[in-house]
Amino acid sequence: MKETVDQRELESRILKLLADEDLKELGHTVQDVAPEDIVLTLERLTENQRAIVFRLLHKDEALEVFEALDPSVQSDLVHGLRDTEVAELFEGLDPDDRVWLLDELPATLAPKLLLGLSDREKRLTAVVLGYPQDSVGRRMTPEYVTTRMDYTVADTMVRLRDRIDDAETIYLLPVLDDARHVAGVVSLRDLIAANPDDVIANIMSEAQSVRASDDAEHAARKLTEAGFVAIPVVDSERRLVGLLTFDDAMRIIENEESEDSARQGGVEPLRRPYFATPIMQLVRSRVVWLLVLAVGATLTVQVLDVFEGTLAEVTVLALFVPLLIGTGGNTGNQAATTVTRALALGDVRARDLARVLGREARVGLMLGLLLGTLGLVLAGFVYSWQIGAVIGLTLVAICTVAATIGGIMPLIARWVKVDPAVFSNPFISTFVDASGLIIYFLIARAILGL
Amino acid sequence: MKETVDQRELESRILKLLADEDLKELGHTVQDVAPEDIVLTLERLTENQRAIVFRLLHKDEALEVFEALDPSVQSDLVHGLRDTEVAELFEGLDPDDRVWLLDELPATLAPKLLLGLSDREKRLTAVVLGYPQDSVGRRMTPEYVTTRMDYTVADTMVRLRDRIDDAETIYLLPVLDDARHVAGVVSLRDLIAANPDDVIANIMSEAQSVRASDDAEHAARKLTEAGFVAIPVVDSERRLVGLLTFDDAMRIIENEESEDSARQGGVEPLRRPYFATPIMQLVRSRVVWLLVLAVGATLTVQVLDVFEGTLAEVTVLALFVPLLIGTGGNTGNQAATTVTRALALGDVRARDLARVLGREARVGLMLGLLLGTLGLVLAGFVYSWQIGAVIGLTLVAICTVAATIGGIMPLIARWVKVDPAVFSNPFISTFVDASGLIIYFLIARAILGL
Repeated sequence: MKETVDQRELESRILKLLADEDLKELGHTVQDVAPEDIVLTLERLTENQRAIVFRLLHKDEALEVFEALDPSVQSDLVHGLRDTEVAELFEGLDPDDRVWLLDELPATLAPKLLLGLSDREKRLTAVVLGYPQDSVGRRMTPEYVTTRMDYTVADTMVRLRDRIDDAETIYLLPVLDDARHVAGVVSLRDLIAANPDDVIANIMSEAQSVRASDDAEHAARKLTEAGFVAIPVVDSERRLVGLLTFDDAMRIIENEESEDSARQGGVEPLRRPYFATPIMQLVRSRVVWLLVLAVGATLTVQVLDVFEGTLAEVTVLALFVPLLIGTGGNTGNQAATTVTRALALGDVRARDLARVLGREARVGLMLGLLLGTLGLVLAGFVYSWQIGAVIGLTLVAICTVAATIGGIMPLIARWVKVDPAVFSNPFISTFVDASGLIIYFLIARAILGL
Repeated sequence: MKETVDQRELESRILKLLADEDLKELGHTVQDVAPEDIVLTLERLTENQRAIVFRLLHKDEALEVFEALDPSVQSDLVHGLRDTEVAELFEGLDPDDRVWLLDELPATLAPKLLLGLSDREKRLTAVVLGYPQDSVGRRMTPEYVTTRMDYTVADTMVRLRDRIDDAETIYLLPVLDDARHVAGVVSLRDLIAANPDDVIANIMSEAQSVRASDDAEHAARKLTEAGFVAIPVVDSERRLVGLLTFDDAMRIIENEESEDSARQGGVEPLRRPYFATPIMQLVRSRVVWLLVLAVGATLTVQVLDVFEGTLAEVTVLALFVPLLIGTGGNTGNQAATTVTRALALGDVRARDLARVLGREARVGLMLGLLLGTLGLVLAGFVYSWQIGAVIGLTLVAICTVAATIGGIMPLIARWVKVDPAVFSNPFISTFVDASGLIIYFLIARAILGL
């Protein structure tokens, strides 16, 4: 039995052997660890190092490792291998994993690889490739085992043993009628627990299913929410076309979470692990949003320009600008974060706009009253009670506006069919900054009588 | 077969029947839909509405629905039910689900419920309850089926059928030696594919395992990364104590993602679905961070106070304050978001500090050069070339500092054993604001010769 190894130790050993160019010892080292353990280390190496280590793996292990790599890393690796090696790996992948990889490969390479496939694999891959980019059809497996209502448990077990090598999962079997409609499902657990003579119709459960054209994240969340091991995927006429398995669902959700997390921070999602991402790509993932936000922020320069007279007259007003717009930004971010997450989990839906608006306005007002009272007392004590009143009132107004805007922005994004996370926190901060400044100076002018 | 229903339609129907107090028709409606479909709707109702709908469910369905509810919602529901109803539901839960619920219940209620359990369930629950809060031991199932190296496949199948009703999963069987050490694992798939006379030793695979005291998220990610259906959980002497199943792993990860997403936005994680959270609890989830950040922001007031003379002399400098600190905050957020995510996924580890620092400093410098050039030209054109030079240079410095700080903060958090997401984006913004202002005014003074 191969021991579970310390990842750190393994990595330092591999890096040292690479530096020493001791390929023989390196070969022994990587062949001795479990495929799961080598994967994380591979994803932390540079492209060249990765190709060297990968080619030292045993053939059968190489496929297992390749399957477990991130598709973007697979794609990098493909460039460093010989055509015959690539063709073999490609043939060995499951059809849905093959499509993950194809989505990453340059358009020129994909057709060449597809043509090299055996007829069976070509056909299966075509099924999956036929569905749009973000649909569950593109992530399902077309290799499954089915049964029928009038079959017995024993019949089904024979069928299952026959097809066990090809099927991606055998833990859930869709039960089909004559028109290939899903009449129910039966789990392998139900089959094992049943009597061999039992008829499937009597032991099957009702089937939950998803449409092949459904959004992949939506389908994946439906599966994980219910804790299913797989869920049938049907076409528009409710005929079975594939199965979404729990491991692919987890992968879909993890990718979506990475995307949401990135957008929430105003970054374009990285396609590959951090250390496998070249510096220039890190720059590219950030520069567009940074520029957009900086251009948006010139609004604040213009607003301040308009109020320059007020500023010159009472310079002390300038001192509170970062504090006030910072608090507004934070309040807006908090609301946006909460609602974006609730949307992703399905707790809140786009048409809940009025309900969310009402809640967030109340939350914002309460936060504003709390902070405003504090601001009134502190600024009043240190500067003057007039300044205190300006700061206090501004905080109440800014918090209410910011929480409301932050809360409904993700819903508006959903309405106009944009990823809610795109109206990300930095975006909301920038927007709230300008409106916060206007509120501030209007209140200041009114109270100070300028 | 129960049809999959439109969630919206179901919800409006239920709300209307609740308003009409037509309990008879409401009973028919909720008994007609699949348990999975009623769950989402239940989580969107108020506490009272939820208790009414839940009590109209058939007894066997009620348990299934209860199991699928969020533990926080279960906990609310418990208060609205009779003691005998609660005791029955509690006995029906799996030991690990029971512990999720116990974690939510008030300390006074938990012992009472535990005492009401049958001896077997009491014993199993005690195993899980014995491990610390965030460990995988507390999330594992103590109900599994094992086999031995010298058993045949046929022996194992008999054993499996015997225990099928109690086991939470039968898709993975740990293979034990005499000392209860895990010698390997065999999947149900392997068992089905094998010959009945095959000996387990010949068909088992090497076992990956996790320690019961390991962090639950770490263990869950290990499972999902490898796409396992379950993973054995062992004690410090490597003896089997339970199994972590894929559905529990997904639940752990989803909770962690919610927590990270909340912290990234400067909110304490909500324990329950958005609409099931009372307004005052939303306020509480935000007010502490908002106060901490506001207190942090008073630093900016003090910095500006120091430079008030410079500001009074050249009022135009005040116009760029929100733009500059906003850009600094955004750059810092971007870096922190990327590194926090990479840490969560295991792509980056705490000891990679130097490597991350080097990368982020370079990325920040490049972003700064780009934005700085733009700032130089624009501000130079509109205001004066001297002001342009101040803005340009400040942007270069701020972006470099912000990306570096933002990038290493999550790692420092890991070093001092704090959740990296706690040094959240708003936290970093506030920190970067003050240092950005100092940089700005020092550069301004130098260039403008003040």
